Amino acid sequence: MSKLFEYIEEKKRLIDHWLETRVPKVKPDSLWEAINYALFPGGKRIRPVLCIAAAEVCNAKAEDVLACACAIEMIHTYSLIHDDLPCMDDDDFRRGKPTVHKKFGEALAVLAGDGLLTLAFEVLTDPNNYPDPSLPKILWVTNEIAKAAGIKGMVAGQVADIEAENRKPTPEMVDFIHLHKTAKMIEVSLKSGAILAGAGYREIERLSEYGRLIGIAFQIIDDVLGEIGSEEKLKKPVKRDREKGKATYPAVWGIEKSKQKAKSLIEEAKQKLKIFESEKCWMLRELADYIVKRES
Amino acid sequence: MSKLFEYIEEKKRLIDHWLETRVPKVKPDSLWEAINYALFPGGKRIRPVLCIAAAEVCNAKAEDVLACACAIEMIHTYSLIHDDLPCMDDDDFRRGKPTVHKKFGEALAVLAGDGLLTLAFEVLTDPNNYPDPSLPKILWVTNEIAKAAGIKGMVAGQVADIEAENRKPTPEMVDFIHLHKTAKMIEVSLKSGAILAGAGYREIERLSEYGRLIGIAFQIIDDVLGEIGSEEKLKKPVKRDREKGKATYPAVWGIEKSKQKAKSLIEEAKQKLKIFESEKCWMLRELADYIVKRES
Repeated sequence: MSKLFEYIEEKKRLIDHWLETRVPKVKPDSLWEAINYALFPGGKRIRPVLCIAAAEVCNAKAEDVLACACAIEMIHTYSLIHDDLPCMDDDDFRRGKPTVHKKFGEALAVLAGDGLLTLAFEVLTDPNNYPDPSLPKILWVTNEIAKAAGIKGMVAGQVADIEAENRKPTPEMVDFIHLHKTAKMIEVSLKSGAILAGAGYREIERLSEYGRLIGIAFQIIDDVLGEIGSEEKLKKPVKRDREKGKATYPAVWGIEKSKQKAKSLIEEAKQKLKIFESEKCWMLRELADYIVKRES
Repeated sequence: MSKLFEYIEEKKRLIDHWLETRVPKVKPDSLWEAINYALFPGGKRIRPVLCIAAAEVCNAKAEDVLACACAIEMIHTYSLIHDDLPCMDDDDFRRGKPTVHKKFGEALAVLAGDGLLTLAFEVLTDPNNYPDPSLPKILWVTNEIAKAAGIKGMVAGQVADIEAENRKPTPEMVDFIHLHKTAKMIEVSLKSGAILAGAGYREIERLSEYGRLIGIAFQIIDDVLGEIGSEEKLKKPVKRDREKGKATYPAVWGIEKSKQKAKSLIEEAKQKLKIFESEKCWMLRELADYIVKRES
């Protein structure tokens, strides 16, 4: 896996550099500080790395999709800030440090989230952010991302997640939550990379399917780690989902069946890559494997 | 003014019909209900009406910019939902009925707002929403709207507004808040209408300037009505700004100077319309006058 980690580290440096230099300095200072506090140091940056990887598999360069990858990370970051709010999941720590509302207050947390979401669309729709801009592709990608993040995507998943609390979780409920809350944004990360790379319809479809499958697996493993993970490695308390009565995969199927399900989704995802040259998509295969093996 | 009110009513019908028929039905039901509760019945719909009016002044039809006008109204609606939250302005009533968080809870209010903001960008970037789509113009307009709503626009204004609470308000503070919190979105409403109508650079600039000026005047009058307006007409309590120690125009300049300032901004705004045929932009002149004369 060390080749994979080198790959991820290399892309993370590009992503961090873009975010550090291209997120505009704004007034009031507190808004700027809250946004930076949320963006740095980032987490795994898995969504933007996947966006770049998809582009590379389709013969484009990281730079061709870097702004788009960073916009997706902004949307992910906004969703975490809002998700952590007292009225939502009420979490005090994220990635080993106090959550945005703990540090800056709730009002600024709401607004920093709103600002990051809006900034993502500002970044996406500025042709200057692309080395070789194709306006139809930019528009298409922006629309796909809005759909994935919106009321038929991530936002619907968040609402379902909160409403499922303290109700007996059903398989349908958990499937809806996982698909919408997590998989749609991971799917669109790959889809965007492929579209901007100028890939054909079949390539775009397969990478999207791969993304949806690893996205669901990613959330299942997140649920599993929330039950049996190491607090030290996760840098957050475990068993919180259970305390809150969350509808998780293990709550419906138990730990073992959840792990099996994640593994079989990952195998299915890797099948989707068969249309690409094997050496080209090695990182997507390894990333898929990493998702089930990870401990944080 | 009755001709103006007929004009506004006619456009409001178009806007309401678009929103009623084109905002997609989504699951969970509660999300759909919260979004609809916030959107209907609307307020003055002043931003989308201005977008349509700008397009008409530039020889386009309402239908050419209707989706864009409605997207702007969605952004305005999201900003009200978040602004009313307990951690922000903590308002229990809006337009004579309980605010979204009072009716649906805080979590759903945050998410309905997030959903409306994201939906606005989904609507804006879908070429099917335009009778005669020009991709460069769609992209330009979407980018302008993201900028006006974002961390150098409305979100910055909201942060400044909250931070100014209970501090001695200065003229600079109030100018920053009015420009960012209110005027930028009104400016971009006109600018978007003009761009999508295919107007030239000079026309776009003048309509934008008109929008910025009436936007500032609009907020000054809002502040004045918040001090001396009729609760019955406003359908909300007055003197709330003062109770909260808000940085308002009257708090810095007093009621009379505020009214004078609004009037002079409106005169300046009307001057910007001089490049257009007088009969064509009658509604923009009358709308400007209405802004200072309104009682709610």
